Amino acid sequence: MTDREQRVLDALEQNRRRPPRFDAPRIDMSHGAGGKATHKLIEGLLLPVLENPALAPLSDAALLPFGEAKLALTTDSFVVRPLVFPGGSIGELAVNGTVNDLAVSGATPLGISAALIIEEGLDTEILSREVRAIAKAAETAGVPVATGDTKVVERGKADGLYVITTGLGIADPELNLSPAAARPGDKILCSGTLGDHGAAILIARGDLELEAEVLSDTRPLTPLTRALKRSAGPGLRFMRDPTRGGVGTVLNELARDSGYGVALWEEKIPVRDVVNGACEILGIDPLYVANEGKLLAVVSPEHADAALEALRGVEGGEEASIIGEVREEPARMVLMHTGFGGTRMIDMLVGDPLPRIC
Amino acid sequence: MTDREQRVLDALEQNRRRPPRFDAPRIDMSHGAGGKATHKLIEGLLLPVLENPALAPLSDAALLPFGEAKLALTTDSFVVRPLVFPGGSIGELAVNGTVNDLAVSGATPLGISAALIIEEGLDTEILSREVRAIAKAAETAGVPVATGDTKVVERGKADGLYVITTGLGIADPELNLSPAAARPGDKILCSGTLGDHGAAILIARGDLELEAEVLSDTRPLTPLTRALKRSAGPGLRFMRDPTRGGVGTVLNELARDSGYGVALWEEKIPVRDVVNGACEILGIDPLYVANEGKLLAVVSPEHADAALEALRGVEGGEEASIIGEVREEPARMVLMHTGFGGTRMIDMLVGDPLPRIC
Repeated sequence: MTDREQRVLDALEQNRRRPPRFDAPRIDMSHGAGGKATHKLIEGLLLPVLENPALAPLSDAALLPFGEAKLALTTDSFVVRPLVFPGGSIGELAVNGTVNDLAVSGATPLGISAALIIEEGLDTEILSREVRAIAKAAETAGVPVATGDTKVVERGKADGLYVITTGLGIADPELNLSPAAARPGDKILCSGTLGDHGAAILIARGDLELEAEVLSDTRPLTPLTRALKRSAGPGLRFMRDPTRGGVGTVLNELARDSGYGVALWEEKIPVRDVVNGACEILGIDPLYVANEGKLLAVVSPEHADAALEALRGVEGGEEASIIGEVREEPARMVLMHTGFGGTRMIDMLVGDPLPRIC
Repeated sequence: MTDREQRVLDALEQNRRRPPRFDAPRIDMSHGAGGKATHKLIEGLLLPVLENPALAPLSDAALLPFGEAKLALTTDSFVVRPLVFPGGSIGELAVNGTVNDLAVSGATPLGISAALIIEEGLDTEILSREVRAIAKAAETAGVPVATGDTKVVERGKADGLYVITTGLGIADPELNLSPAAARPGDKILCSGTLGDHGAAILIARGDLELEAEVLSDTRPLTPLTRALKRSAGPGLRFMRDPTRGGVGTVLNELARDSGYGVALWEEKIPVRDVVNGACEILGIDPLYVANEGKLLAVVSPEHADAALEALRGVEGGEEASIIGEVREEPARMVLMHTGFGGTRMIDMLVGDPLPRIC
């Protein structure tokens, strides 16, 4: 057994030995925010009960064997407030979110389903607009909406509309994407500026006394994942879309599940000034703010430059950069190297500064 | 072209020429009840926007071609109140409901996803119980829960818990189930007593001043659909689980989409006394009350007796009966033959006497 294999096994074993205890007596908003509390809920309460060989709840899509092929299945509820925000709306977000979960699993989308939970009294015009948004986003992503469901709940429930999308895709048999595939020296690529979606929602809600406009980055990632697959080939180790919990959470999962460390270079991390401003008001790092059209990828060093160039050549990837790398040490931790030569640890997000962002 | 083909084409053409207009300015509870208003919402607002070759929103599962095979995809939101009711709970209902939508499409379930929308403040014990109910129902149905999602919404929203399940299955290549496959003389089989689920919910809610206990009939239909496939073979034309909107709605869809008429024999329709009593108080026909563990099937006359016997030999099918048949006339209508030699038309359910039943 190589050192690397031993390290991954150790990481798995450590996770097994220390299943996080879920001891909160009641569910609170933090359990839906995508950070540490959400992980505890999933790993401490859901996984032990639902455990089965097919279950893959912390990665973006489950893989189900079907003959020689593997089918990818992923689901997501969208409960964003407000329903319409600068740069998008719940219908578009719901389609892109599920298409992206398939895309970062390396799967080609076959079809999606859309379930609508509608609040009694919702204007038909609003519903109609969101159905059109669903149809348009599906067309843009090249995925048919194959089936759906509608339920109506009483006035005061459901904030107008919740949209739940499930995606079905075919996994690429050539790819074996996983945190366990990461190796020291691998580069971490990010397809563009961070935190745009979360900041757009907060500003639209009026939670911040900030007049600036930020557009949500909601978009299908399929053109970006295709470009990466072509350019990085077997050098592509892992992809993820950093939504709830942001890049900080995804990289912590990567560090934990690979057994390696992750180094980040602060000056390489692209964040818009206005997003930085919003985050300062909130006292939160943009690394934890949700994105809905960004791709994070781990690529072997020899393929990283080609991959970066490929990303930059695709719409939505123009501002891609290499923001960090995988390192031997410190194992299972994410370390930010600041502009002043210092370092600070990036832990998983605790608490819930940003509810109902998606 | 045979008479039968012409008739099916006429029915399709008529539906196309008269797309129901959706002119309600706002959504109300009736749009979620599964009857006429729900059909108008789906056919008047959703279908024209989402139309694509894969879309099959009024049948129970969409079929997506995949190589030589066809994949079945179906989704359903469960917003039942209360979360626990005599005979079941929302977690069990959500798994069985989606497994059944696959089963009546003739598909073998491969896996399901479960998305949870949780209300802030929900007792962890309640959540934990429903996750166990999901796991147990999935195990009973022999389907893995492959992936999931959790979201939390503020106190006052979501009534504790909504569960959205999506099912993926493989369609049986031998079967071609559809209302258009029905022919005059075909028998209509029903696997047991009608209205148990709806009545159980209403009584549990205290909506009726009725002390009697009725158990929900929630159960996986896979053993029943398997028995039918084996016993009726090519004589099996169409299957459906009469949930929201009940048997009345399913048979109206059958009449409309086949172009033929449906005759029902009132004395053959199995309804428990207590369910009849509850329906009398409500002034609603048990034919419109939701079932969550009943199978309705159209079977050719020469296979009907074997199919009935097969159903009766399976748990959950002991009280199966032949409740009616397909007839040439009156085209596109459902006619009930009463015990007194009279007849009455069974139209689609108008309005919403039974909200939040599933």
